[in-house]
Amino acid sequence: VPLSAKATHQQTRALNQGLVLRTLYHHGPASRAEVARLTGLTRTTVSDVVGEFVATGIAREIGRGPSTGGKAPILVEVVDDSRLTIGLDLGERAFTGALVNLRGVVRHLVEIPVEGRDGHDALASVHRLIDDLLAGSGRDIVLGIGVGTPGLVDTERGVIRWAVNLDWQDLPLGTILSDRTGLPTYIANDARAAAMGEYLFANPARDANLVAVKVGLGVGAGIVLDGRLFHGDDFGAGEIGHTVVVDDGVECRCGRFGCLETITSSRAILQEAEDAAAGHVDSALHAVLDGTGAITLADVASATNAGDEPARRVVVSAGRALGRAIAGLIGVLNVRRIVLLGSVSALGDAYLDAVRDEASRRSLGTLAKATEIVLGRPDEDVVLLGAVALLMTRELGLVPVR
Amino acid sequence: VPLSAKATHQQTRALNQGLVLRTLYHHGPASRAEVARLTGLTRTTVSDVVGEFVATGIAREIGRGPSTGGKAPILVEVVDDSRLTIGLDLGERAFTGALVNLRGVVRHLVEIPVEGRDGHDALASVHRLIDDLLAGSGRDIVLGIGVGTPGLVDTERGVIRWAVNLDWQDLPLGTILSDRTGLPTYIANDARAAAMGEYLFANPARDANLVAVKVGLGVGAGIVLDGRLFHGDDFGAGEIGHTVVVDDGVECRCGRFGCLETITSSRAILQEAEDAAAGHVDSALHAVLDGTGAITLADVASATNAGDEPARRVVVSAGRALGRAIAGLIGVLNVRRIVLLGSVSALGDAYLDAVRDEASRRSLGTLAKATEIVLGRPDEDVVLLGAVALLMTRELGLVPVR
Repeated sequence: VPLSAKATHQQTRALNQGLVLRTLYHHGPASRAEVARLTGLTRTTVSDVVGEFVATGIAREIGRGPSTGGKAPILVEVVDDSRLTIGLDLGERAFTGALVNLRGVVRHLVEIPVEGRDGHDALASVHRLIDDLLAGSGRDIVLGIGVGTPGLVDTERGVIRWAVNLDWQDLPLGTILSDRTGLPTYIANDARAAAMGEYLFANPARDANLVAVKVGLGVGAGIVLDGRLFHGDDFGAGEIGHTVVVDDGVECRCGRFGCLETITSSRAILQEAEDAAAGHVDSALHAVLDGTGAITLADVASATNAGDEPARRVVVSAGRALGRAIAGLIGVLNVRRIVLLGSVSALGDAYLDAVRDEASRRSLGTLAKATEIVLGRPDEDVVLLGAVALLMTRELGLVPVR
Repeated sequence: VPLSAKATHQQTRALNQGLVLRTLYHHGPASRAEVARLTGLTRTTVSDVVGEFVATGIAREIGRGPSTGGKAPILVEVVDDSRLTIGLDLGERAFTGALVNLRGVVRHLVEIPVEGRDGHDALASVHRLIDDLLAGSGRDIVLGIGVGTPGLVDTERGVIRWAVNLDWQDLPLGTILSDRTGLPTYIANDARAAAMGEYLFANPARDANLVAVKVGLGVGAGIVLDGRLFHGDDFGAGEIGHTVVVDDGVECRCGRFGCLETITSSRAILQEAEDAAAGHVDSALHAVLDGTGAITLADVASATNAGDEPARRVVVSAGRALGRAIAGLIGVLNVRRIVLLGSVSALGDAYLDAVRDEASRRSLGTLAKATEIVLGRPDEDVVLLGAVALLMTRELGLVPVR
């Protein structure tokens, strides 16, 4: 169906606004002339759009920049706190919600434990989180809601198709939340959301492609291709945690045996650490277990850094298992930038080295050399920041300009 | 830089031509009114474009269709043989070239053995193939050249970055061939080209995403996402053959040990078959080896179909090894349609069943259920047809319409 002239005009306007905003966002502060040059839009169009932005507070003039011959131009910048977004991370152990500004800075954070809740309680908790966050903000500056959750999520329709930990199946959470709040709502799988956050907020080189591998209680990858989340045909792209990689492996909570999650998740690593503690009474891990009754990832990391050999073996073995999976990702995707996120990143450099070594050893040489595997931000908020990034890229057209 | 009005006009014209041509190609024969309805273009624009197509012979009027009330409309269809393309498959054992029509039908085929040639000889062979094919066609109807080759290929610049079998490194074959012939030339890795062929010529449901896994002497995947070849950051996406999957495996020709190729390539399977023949004097494979001195994939297939147990074990083991790799593809990409191509497809249904079974057993249930793994066309020309498909989608805008 051909577009009506009006729709076309509105679309052009929205495209121009997105273009100007992302130029100011990634290249600002900038003069109107510079924005015109960078975007290819006319001075008049840029001035109109910037005028609107200044009137609505999303941008402001910050005085004159250096002169390039004539009168020094007025510089314009995005006002980072002029709009806030609500980000939610529906984690397995807790729901976290935050008000986040346009640069991905958390302005207010609320957390609710969720253990033992059923699907109905879980939804009530989501509503409560959002109500708390809205009450703590100037309602009119909230752009919308972004939600990250484990499981299979249909991001286009805003439907959680399957989240086993929350007892949710085919829950149209997007519609439920936007009907209740009147705010645009975006929902994505947690690893996929986190990938979008790395892409928008932690991507100085503005790589168009990026893979985020999130390893915590669950294991999943988020794939950004050409600045957009890649979902696959059934919103399952990157669901590598339940691919069987060990023959005759241990049982996974998905019901199968030997899934990647059974050897690389935080749970699996901590189990290994406890076994190592039990088997080596002189190890630092044994002392921790004796003292506190439980070992954390931070304990394993500090024991490793202090030179404890059993701890180091646990870390290296975990890193190698993930490295093997990442070699698979390199062969399939050949995406140069791979970011490790999630609680397991706390294992630090010994872990990263093992991941890199194994991924490289198992990949085609030229591809391995081109690939950079890095630890992402240790930030616990990567999922909610990612959900917010998804919202912002969609609502504001904030896709990085190269 | 803003586009000039002239460039914009020419671009619009090319876009409209592509839109009309692919509508006729995928939905034709169709009336001008129907094309206008399907494309959203005005009747006038469609009539202009169709007029040009008829004048240049790429389309023709084939009489009147059924009336829908008024005067019965004139139907227009693409003339499949109005343009030919040159497709080349620079295979490891032979170079094959063909003249191919717009529907992917081979009109003329030439083959040259290549064993033992160096890079210089190989290039001379390519020139000879093209000269032969051009001599056998009306030169003015040849659209261009499409080339498929093993190795890493920079399709955007037309450079073969690395083709170990041909002793080529950073060879700008695209420029060499287009300078020599004056024809637009496209070059892609063989598996990637083959994927594009499946997409354009063997995709009745017009799936936007598709993975072709080509298993012959080499092993590689071609990934089509949203109607376009996905290359990765260094044109290595789908290069799964040299991912190490066996600890302490046998040496691969890439120099590493235990690559996927060492257990799934035709060479590996035939080695297994010979070992099985040697170990089972009563097997059909032993009889073949005794009689001819060598076993072919066809021999293994027919022995399996005749109920020979050692042959069946070889086939099932090969299928399982590939199924394991495909489970990895499913977890990363979640692309529903996976097509098996290459000489190993000759192993038939017993092989396919083993691939499917293992891929499904190792994948997340919901994703496995959604995935369809099929044997592609047994056609030996899948690579050259794919190279031609790449050329056609780029030069004619022949991306399937949904």
